[in-house]
Amino acid sequence: MVQQQRAVRTRQALIRSAAEAFERYGYVQAKLAEISARAGVSVGALHFHFENKAAVASSVESTAALRLRRAAWNAQRPEMNAVQRLTATSYALADQLRRDVVCRAGLKLSGETPREGGLDLRQEWQDFVQKVVAEASDEDLLIERVEQRGMADVIVAATTGFELLSRQDPAGVSPSLLTNFWRLLLPRVPQP
Amino acid sequence: MVQQQRAVRTRQALIRSAAEAFERYGYVQAKLAEISARAGVSVGALHFHFENKAAVASSVESTAALRLRRAAWNAQRPEMNAVQRLTATSYALADQLRRDVVCRAGLKLSGETPREGGLDLRQEWQDFVQKVVAEASDEDLLIERVEQRGMADVIVAATTGFELLSRQDPAGVSPSLLTNFWRLLLPRVPQP
Repeated sequence: MVQQQRAVRTRQALIRSAAEAFERYGYVQAKLAEISARAGVSVGALHFHFENKAAVASSVESTAALRLRRAAWNAQRPEMNAVQRLTATSYALADQLRRDVVCRAGLKLSGETPREGGLDLRQEWQDFVQKVVAEASDEDLLIERVEQRGMADVIVAATTGFELLSRQDPAGVSPSLLTNFWRLLLPRVPQP
Repeated sequence: MVQQQRAVRTRQALIRSAAEAFERYGYVQAKLAEISARAGVSVGALHFHFENKAAVASSVESTAALRLRRAAWNAQRPEMNAVQRLTATSYALADQLRRDVVCRAGLKLSGETPREGGLDLRQEWQDFVQKVVAEASDEDLLIERVEQRGMADVIVAATTGFELLSRQDPAGVSPSLLTNFWRLLLPRVPQP
């Protein structure tokens, strides 16, 4: 039992260490030797958990997906309208990305390396935005200055851009940037 | 005279060939041998024009700056109000980037490699947006849902994001994305 807990902890440490290496050097340049050393284990121990670098990357990606989906889920409450769900989810995801290197690295991997069984987290965000914008339109929460699809496209492009840019800035996507973005786009809805 | 014209043509061909290599492989991976070969000249001829790779990159960057500034300048007419200048400039820059690999590569270089004497084209765009948003506010063209500075920040972040994303898509920043973006942000102004 103790051994099992230790294995789980080691695996988590490796995933975090790999995320740090992927963020700093990129997937191609990251070295398994450094990933294992920074997690405080041998390369042999790493290979007990992961067959190769692609397997480590898949775990970073799926861990990120799990945490980002949970953050998105937790941000939404039944009493919220569609626009509140959209904005609350955006703040929660930005906050999760700011705090968690595994999420940042996982989202980056998901965007740049289409791999066997790889996830497409950006596609998930796009699907979510399209769905919620359609609901907001049904709920008559939008001032329809553009078609729904056009609005969803602008939101997806701008927020993806914010995320890409935030990689150059340790502070990440600033909440005030998001607030101003939503104020400009969604004038009918009071902001948090 | 003929010789001088040929030298200018060779230099232009090298700048274009370098831009293609920088766009495809990135600055670090791009090879001078390939740049000269694709321009139809020897490495020696390249070195007649440029001391080293950094000098080639500087020329790509300054050529891009020249063309982007000219495109921005040509897009603006005296009879336009501030918001029209802003939107027209954005369309012109997106179009120039779509058509011209030297501009794409120059903007990319300007963003990623701070070099001695390097240009900061993103900073120029930011300064322009801040100035024009302030003028639009003076001209009472904005619905002031956020502070001027916040509005300029959203415009700079979103448009920079559009440009970054467009690198993954040969079609570049689509005019309809820009149109929808401006419609959402600038509801008081009729769009082109």
